[in-house]
Amino acid sequence: MKFNNRNVFISPKAQIGLNVKIGDNTTIYDNVIIGDNTIVCNDCVIGEPTYQYYQHPDTYENPPTVIGSGSMIRSHTILYAGSTFGEGLNTGHRATIRENTTIGKHCLISTLVDIQGNCNIGDYARIYSNVHISEHTRIGNYVFIFPYTIFTNDPQPPSNTLSGTQVGDYSIITVHCCVLPGVKVGKHCLIGANSVLSRDIEDYSFAIGSPAKRIKDIREIPSKENPGEMHYPWPYNFERGMPWQHQDYNTWLQKNPS
Amino acid sequence: MKFNNRNVFISPKAQIGLNVKIGDNTTIYDNVIIGDNTIVCNDCVIGEPTYQYYQHPDTYENPPTVIGSGSMIRSHTILYAGSTFGEGLNTGHRATIRENTTIGKHCLISTLVDIQGNCNIGDYARIYSNVHISEHTRIGNYVFIFPYTIFTNDPQPPSNTLSGTQVGDYSIITVHCCVLPGVKVGKHCLIGANSVLSRDIEDYSFAIGSPAKRIKDIREIPSKENPGEMHYPWPYNFERGMPWQHQDYNTWLQKNPS
Amino acid sequence: MKFNNRNVFISPKAQIGLNVKIGDNTTIYDNVIIGDNTIVCNDCVIGEPTYQYYQHPDTYENPPTVIGSGSMIRSHTILYAGSTFGEGLNTGHRATIRENTTIGKHCLISTLVDIQGNCNIGDYARIYSNVHISEHTRIGNYVFIFPYTIFTNDPQPPSNTLSGTQVGDYSIITVHCCVLPGVKVGKHCLIGANSVLSRDIEDYSFAIGSPAKRIKDIREIPSKENPGEMHYPWPYNFERGMPWQHQDYNTWLQKNPS
Repeated sequence: MKFNNRNVFISPKAQIGLNVKIGDNTTIYDNVIIGDNTIVCNDCVIGEPTYQYYQHPDTYENPPTVIGSGSMIRSHTILYAGSTFGEGLNTGHRATIRENTTIGKHCLISTLVDIQGNCNIGDYARIYSNVHISEHTRIGNYVFIFPYTIFTNDPQPPSNTLSGTQVGDYSIITVHCCVLPGVKVGKHCLIGANSVLSRDIEDYSFAIGSPAKRIKDIREIPSKENPGEMHYPWPYNFERGMPWQHQDYNTWLQKNPS
Repeated sequence: MKFNNRNVFISPKAQIGLNVKIGDNTTIYDNVIIGDNTIVCNDCVIGEPTYQYYQHPDTYENPPTVIGSGSMIRSHTILYAGSTFGEGLNTGHRATIRENTTIGKHCLISTLVDIQGNCNIGDYARIYSNVHISEHTRIGNYVFIFPYTIFTNDPQPPSNTLSGTQVGDYSIITVHCCVLPGVKVGKHCLIGANSVLSRDIEDYSFAIGSPAKRIKDIREIPSKENPGEMHYPWPYNFERGMPWQHQDYNTWLQKNPS
Repeated sequence: MKFNNRNVFISPKAQIGLNVKIGDNTTIYDNVIIGDNTIVCNDCVIGEPTYQYYQHPDTYENPPTVIGSGSMIRSHTILYAGSTFGEGLNTGHRATIRENTTIGKHCLISTLVDIQGNCNIGDYARIYSNVHISEHTRIGNYVFIFPYTIFTNDPQPPSNTLSGTQVGDYSIITVHCCVLPGVKVGKHCLIGANSVLSRDIEDYSFAIGSPAKRIKDIREIPSKENPGEMHYPWPYNFERGMPWQHQDYNTWLQKNPS
């Protein structure tokens, strides 16, 4: 039904793995490297040239764009040249990811997410719809970022300083939050809806508000699903799509010390 | 000027009504049913296959996508297979609506709206730009949702529970609000800008804040347009695009008891 | 690498300047006028017809769409007919700008920005990702609007009144703000993250909160980059992309009194 090879353009300088499907109306530029068993849906642009191309079109060499095996790139996604994506990448529709960004394995970059370039995202991160990630943001492993949350980087706009933000492993930032320039969110944190993070958040904090304040330790939050138990750290209670799926988190952790 | 039949793909299994126009670069997949006098603009994808297609492409049967007559689908809209839209649907550009969603008649789903699937929206609802509606959201009739408002569904992220939200008939949720999981907004409510709705809101409430609190009954809010009168319930003062346009709301209500 | 003239449609009634490049899959409708040395990337729609076209396709005349010289329109941008853009326009991906809007010279309209029509933006404005600008908004010169900020216009929704907002020259509105209907932000203002602007803001104010309140005069804010100095008015400390770049702001100001 799909993949009719209609209006597809693939550069002869691209390297396409085995059993890769490329959707109609999709363009793949020079030096894109796509791993085996990946699906690139329709209307995508992969290896979009950087701004240097327009300045020096005759001498420009497109930097490599590497997409790991078993990935699923949904329609209308734009991936710039010079970025690297681990295996099992999963994008929503209309994601835009600019140059010099590294994203680990098995990440979800959902519909309308806008990653501005020069960012670093770990493994198994889930970035939900319409999250905006400005340059020089660093996001750890097993992190959840919910819709409309923003990572900023200019500490005194407009200025010539770029001060990126950081999010530690296992942390969760819920909807409509703003992470202000330079702020570091620790590991295993939970940030409530509509918060403005203006100061660093220490590990295992539940914080909320504008400006966000630490309310309690996340290990003190009772589970809504399992009365009488605690919900956080969440890996003990949630495994879908995580590397410890179908086994015990503790067992996995012993085999995979961080 | 438009509709030059350039790079259009229409599945032979689609059913296209009378006097339907299909824009350039648009793709219409299997089992799409489009009512008479509908316009599908350029660069759209109608009947986008669900995830099952990629898992079982040989045996996959695309579920029906039904679009009512007299609809206007603006460019770059993606409508998934398995969803049903009543007559007079009006989408903005780049709307994305996933599977198993039912939308009533004469609804506006504006630019960049992201509806995640398994949702239910009534008749004459107006969902403005960039609203995000997560799975299992239920929105009533004659509802207005303003830009950047989010409907969430995970009560303790990440968890295995999906707890959808509800909005009653005639309610208005203004810009930049978050409706937290499981919250029910009653009928004829008005929610102020940038609110976080963490508890149910009773009928006829004006509520605002984070968390949102009921400030007063909406029937106590004076009209800005007509000094000395009350503005709410708004159907007495606003009729554009509503079924009671060009007649008295009370008269219409007597003929159409809810 | 790009600009292979693949699936490009250019109306014979369009006027294309010298040394203009048009990307693959781009459509240019009647009466579009593009200045010299402009680049229109792939998958764009320029001169999108207004709603009148669908009502009267046989007699409809597309109003002129004017794009100044030296502009850079990134992929998937939609520019409606009847709008005018000064020289050096720079759009991000998937920007949408509707009809009867005038944008000055050297403006940035970034990724996913949604301008609803009948708006006026001055020169050298920078509108960052995902800003939503409703009808009848007026934005001055040298203004910065950061991601996810919204300009609204309905003072008592739903109503028949449109009350646009205004932003004065040199002002900065940071992320996730809501400018409520009819509000006027003065010149040289700075608005903090996640603010709701419900009242007019006087010149040189630093305001923040929901509702936003004036905290201090911006001229009292110490510089983070240059200890012991003040950061605002910012033109004394920031010149990238501004007309006073490579010269002294005071010198430029004397030659260019406002």
